[in-house]
Amino acid sequence: MDSVYQHVIAWQEALAESGVPLSVWRIHRRIGMSGGLFLNALQRETGVQLDTEALERLSSLHAEYYLRRAGGVVPLPGAIELLGYLRDHEVPFAIATSGSRLTASSAIELLDLPPDTVLVTRDIVERAKPDPHLFLAAASLLEVDPRHCFVVGDSVWDLLAAQRASSLGVGLLSGGYGRAELQAAGAYRVYADPEDMLDHLEEVGVRPAT
Amino acid sequence: MDSVYQHVIAWQEALAESGVPLSVWRIHRRIGMSGGLFLNALQRETGVQLDTEALERLSSLHAEYYLRRAGGVVPLPGAIELLGYLRDHEVPFAIATSGSRLTASSAIELLDLPPDTVLVTRDIVERAKPDPHLFLAAASLLEVDPRHCFVVGDSVWDLLAAQRASSLGVGLLSGGYGRAELQAAGAYRVYADPEDMLDHLEEVGVRPAT
Repeated sequence: MDSVYQHVIAWQEALAESGVPLSVWRIHRRIGMSGGLFLNALQRETGVQLDTEALERLSSLHAEYYLRRAGGVVPLPGAIELLGYLRDHEVPFAIATSGSRLTASSAIELLDLPPDTVLVTRDIVERAKPDPHLFLAAASLLEVDPRHCFVVGDSVWDLLAAQRASSLGVGLLSGGYGRAELQAAGAYRVYADPEDMLDHLEEVGVRPAT
Repeated sequence: MDSVYQHVIAWQEALAESGVPLSVWRIHRRIGMSGGLFLNALQRETGVQLDTEALERLSSLHAEYYLRRAGGVVPLPGAIELLGYLRDHEVPFAIATSGSRLTASSAIELLDLPPDTVLVTRDIVERAKPDPHLFLAAASLLEVDPRHCFVVGDSVWDLLAAQRASSLGVGLLSGGYGRAELQAAGAYRVYADPEDMLDHLEEVGVRPAT
């Protein structure tokens, strides 16, 4: 989904309303990491200490502001086609996200996926990215050794978590990171978006079931 | 100013309203380049051809949506202090921006700068970044050889234009580009933001007037 920047602005609005001054690029570069780690980092950087109540308010403001602009969130170019290709060719895949089940379910619909798609969300694992739990859970549900899985992600947190899950990492530029940064975090190939990846599927070793 | 992401979202909203589908990261990575080049690139990438009227509408929608969120735009950390230091120590500087005089004037106020600050805007030069005209005009108004000027910018377009002006480039991470990309575009030093640059001012050779 093309949702990174909507999350960035939702956090920026929530932080501004909570009186926490944080430059927008610092928010951008933490999208996709565990919410707990994100909140720790922002408290250290801004010097503002937030109590449990303030942290909960911040999270709920973010959710509110994100949902307000979620109508403008669309699948990335080629996302529907790429997942459709995998399905048609019986290549097992899962959707693993640090978002909640609620947000993820609406994505599943927008991506034209059947309701029985393997879906791993933040709610069912102990720790979010860059810990490997999301991807290990996905591999386990797919009954595939994580060493034979590819993790496709558009943030460095995805790729660090992929390394820690012993999976191969593929980066997409859609998160706003540059190619070199994604490679340094472990991506062995970087594509612009799912459309570009679909055009180069052999490079990631996708072999349709025969 | 911490305004990159507000521009990104304003463009995204303007493009969506005009029926032009473009991934948000592709917008982000073009902020700061000439508007004409940006519109050429988006037409090629989306395959949507826009006539003069549609292009004008797009620009005016962007301006409208940006102004709507401009109240949330604040100076980057350390920006006021850095410019104040340069002023106090009689180090000549100018503000050069691909924005219009109108947008720039409000930035001048927010940055606590006197009204006689040397200001170069898109309106007074033939071409915007990555052409060097903005920076050459600034050097000329300051009566300093451009080879002895530093250009401080947070996009690769700033740094490419700096190279073409034969000036030295200093990158800031506030635009959301990574360090390596800014260096590849010509930055010989990269700082997080103006506050970080002020802490390392000797590295860019700033010598107070004696």
